[in-house]
Amino acid sequence: MRATDIIARKRDGEELSTEEIRWFVAGYTADTIPDYQAAAWLMAVYLRGMSRRETFDLTVAMAESGDQLDLSPVIPYAVDKHSTGGVGDKVTLVVLPLVAAAGVPVAKMSGRGLGFSGGTLDKLESIPGYRVQLSDEEFLRQVREHGIVLGGQTKSLAPADGKFYALRDVTATVSSLPLIASSIMSKKLAAGANAIVLDVKVGAGAFMREVEDARALAQIMVDIGVSAGRQMVALLSDMDQPLGEAVGNALEVREAIETLRGGGPADLREHCLTIAAHMLRLGRRDTAPDALDRALNNVSVLLASGAGFGKLRELAEAQGGDVRVIDDPDLLPQAQLHEVIPAPRGGWVARVDALRVAQATLELGAGREKKEDPIDPAVGVVVHCKVGDRVEAGAPVFTIHANEEARLVRARAQLDQALDVVDDSIPPRPAFYATIDGSE
Amino acid sequence: MRATDIIARKRDGEELSTEEIRWFVAGYTADTIPDYQAAAWLMAVYLRGMSRRETFDLTVAMAESGDQLDLSPVIPYAVDKHSTGGVGDKVTLVVLPLVAAAGVPVAKMSGRGLGFSGGTLDKLESIPGYRVQLSDEEFLRQVREHGIVLGGQTKSLAPADGKFYALRDVTATVSSLPLIASSIMSKKLAAGANAIVLDVKVGAGAFMREVEDARALAQIMVDIGVSAGRQMVALLSDMDQPLGEAVGNALEVREAIETLRGGGPADLREHCLTIAAHMLRLGRRDTAPDALDRALNNVSVLLASGAGFGKLRELAEAQGGDVRVIDDPDLLPQAQLHEVIPAPRGGWVARVDALRVAQATLELGAGREKKEDPIDPAVGVVVHCKVGDRVEAGAPVFTIHANEEARLVRARAQLDQALDVVDDSIPPRPAFYATIDGSE
Repeated sequence: MRATDIIARKRDGEELSTEEIRWFVAGYTADTIPDYQAAAWLMAVYLRGMSRRETFDLTVAMAESGDQLDLSPVIPYAVDKHSTGGVGDKVTLVVLPLVAAAGVPVAKMSGRGLGFSGGTLDKLESIPGYRVQLSDEEFLRQVREHGIVLGGQTKSLAPADGKFYALRDVTATVSSLPLIASSIMSKKLAAGANAIVLDVKVGAGAFMREVEDARALAQIMVDIGVSAGRQMVALLSDMDQPLGEAVGNALEVREAIETLRGGGPADLREHCLTIAAHMLRLGRRDTAPDALDRALNNVSVLLASGAGFGKLRELAEAQGGDVRVIDDPDLLPQAQLHEVIPAPRGGWVARVDALRVAQATLELGAGREKKEDPIDPAVGVVVHCKVGDRVEAGAPVFTIHANEEARLVRARAQLDQALDVVDDSIPPRPAFYATIDGSE
Repeated sequence: MRATDIIARKRDGEELSTEEIRWFVAGYTADTIPDYQAAAWLMAVYLRGMSRRETFDLTVAMAESGDQLDLSPVIPYAVDKHSTGGVGDKVTLVVLPLVAAAGVPVAKMSGRGLGFSGGTLDKLESIPGYRVQLSDEEFLRQVREHGIVLGGQTKSLAPADGKFYALRDVTATVSSLPLIASSIMSKKLAAGANAIVLDVKVGAGAFMREVEDARALAQIMVDIGVSAGRQMVALLSDMDQPLGEAVGNALEVREAIETLRGGGPADLREHCLTIAAHMLRLGRRDTAPDALDRALNNVSVLLASGAGFGKLRELAEAQGGDVRVIDDPDLLPQAQLHEVIPAPRGGWVARVDALRVAQATLELGAGREKKEDPIDPAVGVVVHCKVGDRVEAGAPVFTIHANEEARLVRARAQLDQALDVVDDSIPPRPAFYATIDGSE
């Protein structure tokens, strides 16, 4: 086979064979196919698309490009979750302890954030001492002993995806459904999950702006998982406004702790219980008609009882984190400057723009523009209102947590454009738009 | 500006600005834009196309990416020619001496061949001693003293085109009209021509298989030249069967010499006189209604008188070539093995497949598959019939000139599929399909 022939066939809109896709992915992983040929191929894929079969083959080829984690010695039936990325998305920090508390062991590898606020690993690192990089042995031992582990992805997991992803970022080939779907699913398959709950975000603060685009992406990922013999559920959830109130690493950890203690914002609580219930049902392989209702009831009880909080505490301790900050979140990193933004007028909140809030937190230093940028765990924005709320003129709508005056000014400029208040009442936004069930 | 934004705009089918194209070409030339970004951009251009304005801007940006030859101190009005590449195309070797003999100085830079038989430089190097690499000073001095120079392109001429061309070859982005047109024209503009005659080939042995595709390419190149203030004429000529009889480096030099001595194949003579007449008319800036007829008469007389042959002799001598081989072509490199292929049956010749003949000469070692491949000047194929000819069964139709038995066998296998003979008479193929006149 020749790389140029495979590029030419995709360029001409032809369907590549399983063998061609495997050969190309293996060659790129082994550096026998150079970046420039992969770049031309990615652009051809971007513009010509891929069939479901090609997308599945690409996913499997990338999943098989490195080590594949075998969780079966420690977890008989592993359940995982993935969010396509949102603003204020601290769901994993709440959901994993709840599911583990329900007796379904969870072993999850998370990523770091690029753009917006940090990823789950960055959030965890605002807990002093928390170790995100575990060896495979440590990872497996912890889930055996504690039923929960939450660490970073190893470099040997789906290395082809790592290479392609970095290349897509600099060749304007990110926003392609088959490339996004295969990237996400290759890591999930390699990480050893038997069942996967996908949280596909849609709205101003998400990659997918329209429900139909999000549905298409979700369906492709569900199809890939089902083809690979996994149980799949995808939820389409709102990301037009931030999830919960806190956006920023330590601020989000605090909100996750509050939620596990029975407090926290209502939308976040509802979101986490729904995701956790789906994971629990899949992890139990419960196919009874009322299985989801029962799972939802289970996790609600575990939230109320503090069992979920106890599991978060156990997780933090097992990975070397200082549990005092879990018990007293005031010990988390705190910003020095605080500014409250008041509502410019009274009325109903029609828009809290998740993208603007994300850009504000990026200005504050909570996220990264480039891989090597440091992040500030303490800074961020707390959002005090939701679409549909009634606010009075001058009531607090945002609180900025900053460590530099100049950054605070830039964040405020973003937030000044993040809120719309109108005269007529507005209904609240839905939490979820649809569920795609790819489980038996 | 950011390379990814420019790639994304072209990916989305938008028209790039002059500034964006210049910035991208300059960045790629200076290695600040890496191959992988250029590769993604080339694929986007391939699939989304370019407007006439974008194609012109790309051409000018590549022409200005390196040194630009200023011929004005030695040639008041420079005329050049370019062939898009054909099988048995030794036209430059005949035409340049004729035009120079008519008093219009010619200074041409030619390329080496990739695929098929060699390029003009490879053909010239079958003359012992002929130096194709001249310094700019030598190049200008020779045209001043002799009115004719024919050398290789310097690396500093349109270096952006050299980089893009090499990248296109390995990223399946060769066959794009705006990329082909801008590649050819960037070198012509940088080489300092005021007027250019384009010989655009069409048929089995050419890049363009259909007349309409060739016409589209020709029109784009004419438009580029006119926009750049050049006088342009493009001829669409037949390359379904080889031009003339000889295909192979020394064999073609011999045929060019015979043609300049008044012999040679009729189709080659007609072709050369037509191209030379257009060049002469443009070089003289003669806009009278009968200018082309007069120019054709002039070059016919110069061919018959031997003045053109004398100028070839002068050219060879000026560039260090052994003129004894011009006087006695038997001294050119000769192959050791000869095999005559007879007509399998009597009838009319319906097809002499230029691509098959080219592949036969490539098998013999007359061309290159990779840049660094050596070529054998002596080998090749002589074609004894033209479409429309009447042949008897057993009459010679091809003579193979080879230096290795195994190669001869492979060449014969190609030639066995190169000829169709039918029962009913067939008209000869036209020499030219159309003329696109972009001159005043």
